[in-house]
Amino acid sequence: MCVAGCDEAMHRALSRRRLFRRAAAGAVLATGLRAEVVSAATPPTRFEKVIDLTHTLDPAFPTFFGTSGIELRTRFSYRKDGLNFLQWVLDEHSGTHIDAPLHFSENGADASALPIVDLVVPLAVIDVAAQAAANADYAVTPDDIKAWEERNGRLPDRAAVAIHTGWAQHLGTAKYRNEGPDGKLHFPGVHPAAAEVLIRERSVTGLLIDTLSFDIGATKDFPTHVLWLPSGRWGAENVANLDQVPPVGATIVVGGPKIRGATGGPSRLIALV
Amino acid sequence: MCVAGCDEAMHRALSRRRLFRRAAAGAVLATGLRAEVVSAATPPTRFEKVIDLTHTLDPAFPTFFGTSGIELRTRFSYRKDGLNFLQWVLDEHSGTHIDAPLHFSENGADASALPIVDLVVPLAVIDVAAQAAANADYAVTPDDIKAWEERNGRLPDRAAVAIHTGWAQHLGTAKYRNEGPDGKLHFPGVHPAAAEVLIRERSVTGLLIDTLSFDIGATKDFPTHVLWLPSGRWGAENVANLDQVPPVGATIVVGGPKIRGATGGPSRLIALV
Ligand SMILES: [Zn+2]
Ligand SMILES: [Zn+2]
Repeated sequence: MCVAGCDEAMHRALSRRRLFRRAAAGAVLATGLRAEVVSAATPPTRFEKVIDLTHTLDPAFPTFFGTSGIELRTRFSYRKDGLNFLQWVLDEHSGTHIDAPLHFSENGADASALPIVDLVVPLAVIDVAAQAAANADYAVTPDDIKAWEERNGRLPDRAAVAIHTGWAQHLGTAKYRNEGPDGKLHFPGVHPAAAEVLIRERSVTGLLIDTLSFDIGATKDFPTHVLWLPSGRWGAENVANLDQVPPVGATIVVGGPKIRGATGGPSRLIALV
Repeated sequence: MCVAGCDEAMHRALSRRRLFRRAAAGAVLATGLRAEVVSAATPPTRFEKVIDLTHTLDPAFPTFFGTSGIELRTRFSYRKDGLNFLQWVLDEHSGTHIDAPLHFSENGADASALPIVDLVVPLAVIDVAAQAAANADYAVTPDDIKAWEERNGRLPDRAAVAIHTGWAQHLGTAKYRNEGPDGKLHFPGVHPAAAEVLIRERSVTGLLIDTLSFDIGATKDFPTHVLWLPSGRWGAENVANLDQVPPVGATIVVGGPKIRGATGGPSRLIALV
């Protein structure tokens, strides 16, 4: 059994080991040999409950640009052919989906190149629903992170940080995109200063939000994307059911697309609690 | 702490509870209210290692019908637009993917309707690599299941059963599809009699295989699909790295697409050991 402090020490040791392994994998990649990290150790993790963080995608699901994100074409039909089989014409950043570093960089990792060890990580949920209800343009600040840590302790090593703005309740209404008379979208996001803290002062792997974008809707130059993705981290947008997840203690499994060249794409996000 | 026999009793109790919950969810669905099961209890599960069971999909990945499974179109490019963003034209049953009941039934569950409780389940791996190496048309028999149980104990309640044929090693060569002079494909699969056992005598949720189809390649009328999918269970094909997973003790997380109407689709399959 592990006494007080031991869990944390083991976690740190494993993190170092994992970083070493990633460096080794990088070296192998550089010599052009086996590139896939197929197996990775994690701190011992236990769960008893499974929460689906994924919305159902259909052609009516709202998108940032306002166009339909998916068209479904029939290739075979049960009545005629004895089986159903569709073809999807799909814009990558539709529905509950991830962003890969390549989305905002020239040569960053594509969705297939994200290390598997970054896709099963501790999940921390920061609740700014009250702030967002008062101000649709609310951007998460470094102070929100500080306040979360005062209540829940330091963000876990290599955590994914999810921002619960309460916006999922607006899905199916115009409030989800919230286009104003100014022609801009008005939904909450993450201020680049808060992203800076997560990158430089904590070892965060991913950033999730329950809106269309982790930049606030009203910003057209995506400063948080520009900062976050080229740093090698993943993002996830249109995340569901964050109100079901505790602030700390869950693990997220990111069922992201393993498609060569993809800049992201619809993903099954599952929380283990 | 749980003494001998207690684990199994708890597991059985939880399974009953889960079946009750699924019946309740079904009732809600029938009345037209909230249809999504967002959260579900599982037996306490612990893991220390993450294994990616997913191949990387690209336009050259082999498909059952021999056509390319995906085309990637550029919507925005970093050089021109400041961000990369693709559109996929994707045949659903490409790469490592799941089959939903709708694939082989008129009104079965689509990929978005699979209960989340069926997507995080115990994983059992049956190794028939020796048989498949001797006979490319090898079909898993009820005796293979019996032999596995003699060595590993009864298949866990609600397990997903993965068939390791060793075929993943042939990916990238003509042997993976193995089209013969008879015009038929020759790769191993699962005999319908074995599928019958898993459906009627065990409580199995999913069936995975490391080939293009869980029916043997040489059979054109898909008898195992016809039996398995309309029973409400999911399948998974072109599964990777099954040689890394122990016969019993792992948990699979099925990162399947939550797309309304989908008959299956590329999925991130992750084993927790
Ligand atoms: Zn995106
Ligand atoms: Zn299929």
